Amino acid sequence: MPKPQTNAPKPMDVLRGSIDKNVLVDVKGNRGYSGILEGYDIYMNLVLRNAGETISGNVSGVYDRILVRGDNVIFVSPSKGDMQ
Amino acid sequence: MPKPQTNAPKPMDVLRGSIDKNVLVDVKGNRGYSGILEGYDIYMNLVLRNAGETISGNVSGVYDRILVRGDNVIFVSPSKGDMQ
Amino acid sequence: MPKPQTNAPKPMDVLRGSIDKNVLVDVKGNRGYSGILEGYDIYMNLVLRNAGETISGNVSGVYDRILVRGDNVIFVSPSKGDMQ
Amino acid sequence: MPKPQTNAPKPMDVLRGSIDKNVLVDVKGNRGYSGILEGYDIYMNLVLRNAGETISGNVSGVYDRILVRGDNVIFVSPSKGDMQ
Amino acid sequence: MPKPQTNAPKPMDVLRGSIDKNVLVDVKGNRGYSGILEGYDIYMNLVLRNAGETISGNVSGVYDRILVRGDNVIFVSPSKGDMQ
Amino acid sequence: MPKPQTNAPKPMDVLRGSIDKNVLVDVKGNRGYSGILEGYDIYMNLVLRNAGETISGNVSGVYDRILVRGDNVIFVSPSKGDMQ
Amino acid sequence: MPKPQTNAPKPMDVLRGSIDKNVLVDVKGNRGYSGILEGYDIYMNLVLRNAGETISGNVSGVYDRILVRGDNVIFVSPSKGDMQ
Repeated sequence: MPKPQTNAPKPMDVLRGSIDKNVLVDVKGNRGYSGILEGYDIYMNLVLRNAGETISGNVSGVYDRILVRGDNVIFVSPSKGDMQ
Repeated sequence: MPKPQTNAPKPMDVLRGSIDKNVLVDVKGNRGYSGILEGYDIYMNLVLRNAGETISGNVSGVYDRILVRGDNVIFVSPSKGDMQ
Repeated sequence: MPKPQTNAPKPMDVLRGSIDKNVLVDVKGNRGYSGILEGYDIYMNLVLRNAGETISGNVSGVYDRILVRGDNVIFVSPSKGDMQ
Repeated sequence: MPKPQTNAPKPMDVLRGSIDKNVLVDVKGNRGYSGILEGYDIYMNLVLRNAGETISGNVSGVYDRILVRGDNVIFVSPSKGDMQ
Repeated sequence: MPKPQTNAPKPMDVLRGSIDKNVLVDVKGNRGYSGILEGYDIYMNLVLRNAGETISGNVSGVYDRILVRGDNVIFVSPSKGDMQ
Repeated sequence: MPKPQTNAPKPMDVLRGSIDKNVLVDVKGNRGYSGILEGYDIYMNLVLRNAGETISGNVSGVYDRILVRGDNVIFVSPSKGDMQ
Repeated sequence: MPKPQTNAPKPMDVLRGSIDKNVLVDVKGNRGYSGILEGYDIYMNLVLRNAGETISGNVSGVYDRILVRGDNVIFVSPSKGDMQ
């Protein structure tokens, strides 16, 4: 029988808990971004600071600040060591 | 004649019943994730702990915690032995 | 002149009538699933029990229980012999 | 100046008028289905009876009853001779 | 400064004004349909009568009546001579 | 600190200000349309008059009037000289 | 435990703070646009002034003003030096 989910974190909690911490973001089209999560919204639009970009695994850009559209996100993962 | 579905589990019940258990998640782009389901929401966004990632069947990453966007999910399956 | 559809089954009736029966599900990406329909929701998310998976026609997996995301479904067909 | 559309059939009227008649359905991925339309809903999900399936023009399956997800539909055409 | 659009036709007015007239419809997947517009709805689902179909420029079918799903439409153009 | 956007034009203002002027429209599938903007709606469906079409840069059609579905639009640009 | 996000910028704040400043916009289909952000809306539709376009890294156009549809946006980044 299903048990209540009271103590289970909701996906958005992961984002809220990652504010000001390093995250890894995988995006469609073989793109990846890693940087400090500055903000997000319910569409999973993300704001990263000091973000590095890879395309097909090769470094393709560095951005002081970048707004990544949530539509294209495959996953977001808090960096090890920064996880709560 | 269609019979009522009172005792049939709703798809979200499968997720609720899999909290703190191992699940296998298949995602578009030949990606797979296996790990412990920590949370989910109605968009099928999923939070996994101790997650392994495969791309085209090859291990491509390990994540302490990962938020997988529901849009890209093809299926979620509770691991054998962990199923209710 | 169009006639009323009073006696015509709605698509969701087909799912309701297939609970606890074998169904064949075709999914984008050349995937197919066959198993016993345990549950569904209005998004056509499906729960199958004892499900076999084929990719491009080759058997690729067997799952005790699997939640297939409705987005990717192409068709659902009740198995012959099990149809009402 | 645009004239009122009072007598023009709405797209869903075509489906309603095709109940219990043969229709041809083209679906993304080079798939086609022909069978007797049993039901439909506002998402253009369709239920066909005695349905033949073609993939890239080749016969690939026969289904006593099939629920085709509306998302993938390109067109629905009533068969000649059965049209109102 | 933007001026009001009072006299400018809305896109749906083009469809309303094309009822019972020839239209050309381009659809994703290199498909085209030409026929007499019988009806439409707010999703840009279209009903055509006496419709010819081309795929990649080659004639591929003729339909007494066809319901084209709006999702796949790229453009609709009233035929010359029939335009208001 | 973010400043209010009171004087900044909203995207739809660009369309409103382009009524009866030449616009260039880029559409998915390597298509482009140039013509006089007659109308638009909130879905970015566009009506063009005297429109030329290019596919992969080659002229592929000329239309007295054309309704371009907003879904497929990549960008709309007012022609130089016609811009407010 | 997740902390409140009171001081974290929302994604739309990044756009609001970039009005009248240079931004870099990456769009599906290997397209990029750089120009002065004039306006935006909640769909991430963007208006750029003095915009350069690249396709697969090659300069492909220059636009006095361009409305980029939000659907296709991958990311928006304020130019260095212009960031708040």
